[in-house]
Amino acid sequence: MDSRAVGRPIIALAMGDPAGISPELTAKAIALPEIRAAAALVVIGDARVLAAGARTARIAPDVEIRKPFAGPPADDNDSTVFIDLANLDPARVETGQATPAGGAYALANFRFALGLAAAGHADAVCFTPFNKAAMRSAHPGYDDEIGFTAEVLGTSGPASEFNVLDELWNARVTSHVPLAAVAGALSRAAIVDAIRLTDRSLRDADVASPRIAVAGLNPHAGDGGNFGREEIDIIAPAVADARSEGIAAEGPFPADTVFVRARGGGFDAVVTMYHDQGQIAMKLMGFDRGVTLLGGFPFPICTPAHGTAYDIAGRGVANVGATRAALLLAARMASARRARRAASTAA
Amino acid sequence: MDSRAVGRPIIALAMGDPAGISPELTAKAIALPEIRAAAALVVIGDARVLAAGARTARIAPDVEIRKPFAGPPADDNDSTVFIDLANLDPARVETGQATPAGGAYALANFRFALGLAAAGHADAVCFTPFNKAAMRSAHPGYDDEIGFTAEVLGTSGPASEFNVLDELWNARVTSHVPLAAVAGALSRAAIVDAIRLTDRSLRDADVASPRIAVAGLNPHAGDGGNFGREEIDIIAPAVADARSEGIAAEGPFPADTVFVRARGGGFDAVVTMYHDQGQIAMKLMGFDRGVTLLGGFPFPICTPAHGTAYDIAGRGVANVGATRAALLLAARMASARRARRAASTAA
Repeated sequence: MDSRAVGRPIIALAMGDPAGISPELTAKAIALPEIRAAAALVVIGDARVLAAGARTARIAPDVEIRKPFAGPPADDNDSTVFIDLANLDPARVETGQATPAGGAYALANFRFALGLAAAGHADAVCFTPFNKAAMRSAHPGYDDEIGFTAEVLGTSGPASEFNVLDELWNARVTSHVPLAAVAGALSRAAIVDAIRLTDRSLRDADVASPRIAVAGLNPHAGDGGNFGREEIDIIAPAVADARSEGIAAEGPFPADTVFVRARGGGFDAVVTMYHDQGQIAMKLMGFDRGVTLLGGFPFPICTPAHGTAYDIAGRGVANVGATRAALLLAARMASARRARRAASTAA
Repeated sequence: MDSRAVGRPIIALAMGDPAGISPELTAKAIALPEIRAAAALVVIGDARVLAAGARTARIAPDVEIRKPFAGPPADDNDSTVFIDLANLDPARVETGQATPAGGAYALANFRFALGLAAAGHADAVCFTPFNKAAMRSAHPGYDDEIGFTAEVLGTSGPASEFNVLDELWNARVTSHVPLAAVAGALSRAAIVDAIRLTDRSLRDADVASPRIAVAGLNPHAGDGGNFGREEIDIIAPAVADARSEGIAAEGPFPADTVFVRARGGGFDAVVTMYHDQGQIAMKLMGFDRGVTLLGGFPFPICTPAHGTAYDIAGRGVANVGATRAALLLAARMASARRARRAASTAA
């Protein structure tokens, strides 16, 4: 039986962009008793950057600082482990600026955290916000977290970003593409993939029978073909395919009412066709609590849905709510995975 | 000086589709004391359909039934005037069904109400929900309320649908077109027209210095051109054009955060590029209170933003909130217009 089948899951938390609120959020998250109860944290970054974040947050972080590669962390640690990569002098951080140094710092921490989890030394990965421009300047060819993670892990299966707010999930079929390219990028297969991954990821989070709503593409879901035919030609057939596999998918529904129904508890997830279709709704419903989950990888990867908030960096006013929610979701998914493993080993 | 410069404005209220909740909403709205205080109502429809709606609403409507063309209504009527077109026997209404008879009824009432206002006998027009399929079956070539109104009134200037929720307005540059056609339908001139009409309509509603946010088209408003160039090539120049005319327009802003800012009081209106960009947000923020305003016509035309709700027709549970809000917005705009006219006549 896996020695980690009991006890808290281990979450590797990578410090994000140092020029925004990431250091402050890291210090605040470490101090939350509900996080300590739910998971053993292994934080990755530079101890001096954490100390600066702790000063901003006016918190004395209770961490046990270790050198990298000093042996794997254990889940029975009472204190939080901080793996000090000693990779950024805070004197080099320009508050509120996207810099190659900041991007390189966040990338190194994230890569280390992914490595820990890939080696089985952590059950999940979380990170405080990245800045995309800084990431790109540090790593030419950097597109997004999904692409970078697949590159580091060497995975090639379908992966997708989920937005999670309380008990409601949102997945999207297309993401960072121009609106003019969305319709052309949709296919029956891509929509079925997104529905399948949503169903599987919800089950990974211990939702026993996921109910999934699928949004239409066009106004009024095409109004019977009057305002576009994608619902008839592509989306409805994809929903039928998913249902034939036993997935409780429904739709396509008009995008402007599907979230009203889902918020009321009608669905566990909404699969949307493009970025803003879901993001407009999710950010309105809970800008301060939304979590982004990278699904389709061997372990859960979570981060707050908001950005680096350069405008309030260093002021001590950052809201830790979404970071807290990201860590709790990762802990819940990792615990469920441990329990499934324990059950299958025992069987 | 206009004899109607003092006193309540007159609102012509056309009964909508008889198979849904429109008859019930009409009966409920007539009974609201705050509506009677704000406006003299002239309701248009069949008295038997109103009676049926009143039974559903369990309300005895206090109306003075008149024949059509019996002389114009006056704003000092204490009771609500009901102009009985005697145009639909309730025995012919199939509850919950879109029928040509239902569409013809709603269209006749709406046409009569527009005629009253065009002749100067009413200051504004309101209507309870229409069913688009019924309208089309009754009037081949019927596209939407904007097109029908322009046809009846013989107007040709820019007209647009606004969604209004409490103090927040939303206008859109494109509406009932497939999503794939949105980018191609945008132009600098069309966006400037929409911003101008928004500014003018807000001023008509007595907002002295309208603050207007303009949404981008692409995810993250294009992310500096990485995910589409419409923000750079079309939308930003249109915002600059509007500003050069003295309009307080700002943007383009990412669509997924602009409504969070606007809801917080940052703007009076958001101009969106396509239907669902605004509708997703507005319906989430207040499905039961949202109003649709047809702007760009000689008088305000308002209706609840929700539909005919065939699923709850005849049950007495329809929420009158959005109809109430539509009548109050029309009354406010009509009163402001009366005041402006009185001031300019006195000057």
